[in-house]
Amino acid sequence: MDTIKHIPENGKTRVVIIGGGFAGLKLARQLANTKYQVVLIDRNNFHQFQPLFYQVATSGLEPSSIAFPLRKIFQKRKNVHFRMADLLEVDSNKQEIYTSLGSLKYDHLVLATGVDTNYFGNKNIEEFAIPMKSVSEAIFLRNSILRNYEKALNESDPQKAANYMNIVLVGGGPTGVELAGALAEMKSKILPKDYPELDFSLMNVYLFEASNRLLSGMSENASAKAKTYLQKLGVIVKTEAMVADYDGLKISLANGEEFNSYALVWAAGVVANPIKGISEIAAARGGRLRVDLYNKVKGLTNVYAIGDIAFQQEGDFQNGHPQVAQVGLQQAVVLGKNLKRILLGKDMITFHYKDRGSLATIGKNLAVADLPGIKMQGFIAWVLWLFVHLMAIVGVKNRFFILVNWIWNYWTSDQSLRVLIRPKKRSFTDRASKKKHQIGIN
Amino acid sequence: MDTIKHIPENGKTRVVIIGGGFAGLKLARQLANTKYQVVLIDRNNFHQFQPLFYQVATSGLEPSSIAFPLRKIFQKRKNVHFRMADLLEVDSNKQEIYTSLGSLKYDHLVLATGVDTNYFGNKNIEEFAIPMKSVSEAIFLRNSILRNYEKALNESDPQKAANYMNIVLVGGGPTGVELAGALAEMKSKILPKDYPELDFSLMNVYLFEASNRLLSGMSENASAKAKTYLQKLGVIVKTEAMVADYDGLKISLANGEEFNSYALVWAAGVVANPIKGISEIAAARGGRLRVDLYNKVKGLTNVYAIGDIAFQQEGDFQNGHPQVAQVGLQQAVVLGKNLKRILLGKDMITFHYKDRGSLATIGKNLAVADLPGIKMQGFIAWVLWLFVHLMAIVGVKNRFFILVNWIWNYWTSDQSLRVLIRPKKRSFTDRASKKKHQIGIN
Repeated sequence: MDTIKHIPENGKTRVVIIGGGFAGLKLARQLANTKYQVVLIDRNNFHQFQPLFYQVATSGLEPSSIAFPLRKIFQKRKNVHFRMADLLEVDSNKQEIYTSLGSLKYDHLVLATGVDTNYFGNKNIEEFAIPMKSVSEAIFLRNSILRNYEKALNESDPQKAANYMNIVLVGGGPTGVELAGALAEMKSKILPKDYPELDFSLMNVYLFEASNRLLSGMSENASAKAKTYLQKLGVIVKTEAMVADYDGLKISLANGEEFNSYALVWAAGVVANPIKGISEIAAARGGRLRVDLYNKVKGLTNVYAIGDIAFQQEGDFQNGHPQVAQVGLQQAVVLGKNLKRILLGKDMITFHYKDRGSLATIGKNLAVADLPGIKMQGFIAWVLWLFVHLMAIVGVKNRFFILVNWIWNYWTSDQSLRVLIRPKKRSFTDRASKKKHQIGIN
Repeated sequence: MDTIKHIPENGKTRVVIIGGGFAGLKLARQLANTKYQVVLIDRNNFHQFQPLFYQVATSGLEPSSIAFPLRKIFQKRKNVHFRMADLLEVDSNKQEIYTSLGSLKYDHLVLATGVDTNYFGNKNIEEFAIPMKSVSEAIFLRNSILRNYEKALNESDPQKAANYMNIVLVGGGPTGVELAGALAEMKSKILPKDYPELDFSLMNVYLFEASNRLLSGMSENASAKAKTYLQKLGVIVKTEAMVADYDGLKISLANGEEFNSYALVWAAGVVANPIKGISEIAAARGGRLRVDLYNKVKGLTNVYAIGDIAFQQEGDFQNGHPQVAQVGLQQAVVLGKNLKRILLGKDMITFHYKDRGSLATIGKNLAVADLPGIKMQGFIAWVLWLFVHLMAIVGVKNRFFILVNWIWNYWTSDQSLRVLIRPKKRSFTDRASKKKHQIGIN
């Protein structure tokens, strides 16, 4: 395999970061303008701002609002090189990675590839459910929802129409809760205006959670509030409800109950993306890679892991940290400091997670928050929380503009975003790759 | 085939409009709040604002900015019913249409289905070229451009890198001219910042036009200005250049010249979408349907055609009107008046096209305009022209906001829109339709 082109061999120590999510992007920014050569690799050419996927899915924001082109972020950073590529394998002995663009030797390798949807081995669910772990999946969900309403309109049997209108969310974490709230508001405020011929009293939004409470990563108070708020919005919330099967229409719970919906969103679990050459050596539960207190992958030299993919036991977190952005961001900051310390010959410092609070939104006006020392509700809490996450990933100049843009678009979103843009159904042959692309439904 | 559901049979005279482009949408708005029942059908659930496709293609605007949900436009119009469906066939004797949602009887049928890309029978070009007649095709073009630059970065041979960087536009009408200008500006101002490792002096933007001048629908003065401006921007303009073949890399002109590019955009001709049950009877050159001075389709009763699909000989236009938005808009206004006159028992009035001028943009600061009586240049002319088209399709309240949004996004677009959002590569089975969707490259 040839080497990736145009990465200078200039004597600088090379840090290769795989993954431009919260953790990888933060680390790359930490190391910009240092003596390191940083190579950032991601399969997309943009960072995806996950906390707002649910808004794209419910037509509240355009996809491009939450996708930040990585090249733009590092335009002025001469020591940071970006490549859009897939990681194929790592040879930790040779200290070399193999990607879809070629091979590359590293001095330090940082894995920040995150996690993907976990179907727990259920092939039916994997085939028929809609995941939501990327912007394009959020777009797909949005299009599916819109398409189903057009179909509902063509059913004379109210029960069949309801099958198209119902939406089931599986997983009571922030993703499921936020989607359920947004969809419930669509049902009561927006959809009846767009589809006056449909009877929305027939439509149900369901939220199924396998454990005994929603938002199990937050306080019991937050869980209870979330459930109450969602029920007020009309969501049918079922805890201790495990989805056993789904055939594209019929949802079967473990306790035997059955429900019908053509739209089931699966946000019930995550699993780390396996990395050939690494996972075989270091993977723990959920595919997460075992790291020490310096985020170094156990059993390997010069390989680190941060973010959702890392499994680290420290302090109160003997079962690993929650897989949330904050953890990855803090790990990236400490690893960045440590890599700089290495250059200066200083000792490295250990990582200790400081939980600065969590927040989940339920509809446009409600948020539940565990923010230590601060009592804050609703919209203000939500904006602050977004801002904190935004600060971590883009430059100062942009943050204010982006935040204003989000708030403006979100509040005025009623008009423009319920569009079902799908690729034209035709074949297209990309001669360069000799691959025939069937441009089908998105 | 069952009837389309939920369209009331309430004694109102039913006007069925096929196509929610400029002409169909304008007519539907004309007939809103009249005694007619209007059924508007389009295969998409949104109107696509064609004049700004080239901005989506060059990452200057988000797709949703130029896609207006049709349901939203008619939310408050109780007599207008929208259905997202494909027209399959028309039975003009029974006065019935057959669609993907079912059948429907009409009292008046208006065909406003427009035109699509014409490859003039060249199967190679159809397979390898990129068209640009819809928002989704504009997105596809944008993604192709971005993907090609990532590939160029991985070529060590400068000639091969150039093959990925070059872009060829075929067709010197407004589409080709506008794309060429925007791409030339991307080449000089934006791309070198995003791809510092690439040598953009190797990149060429070509514009090939088969006739002897660009913008042949405009004045000779406009043609000459456009050519000069484009050449100043660095575009290689060739008139009397007919593309004979394209194999995905090599472009062969009729005169034997050859060029290399993995990106060829075909905007060299249009052909009407055939309508089963109508085209066999009434199609003329280019598939356009022959209509009389009342836009009634010749040889049929109660069937009308407006916009690009109509072929009408009147006044100075004995070879049919130019296929531009203005014509369709004016025909829609007159047909709307005529349909109202029918209700009042009045005579119909004939159509006479008034050319209010045309405009094409070349890059951010240049426009060529033939605006009778008005001497105007550049940005102001462009904004006015956009506004005039916008006025025709959306309500007053929205126009200002949309226009401001476009201008703002366009001028600040440098940062956020160079994102290559493609669907996740996996299979997804839609049980409802029992179709397996291969979510491939968009």
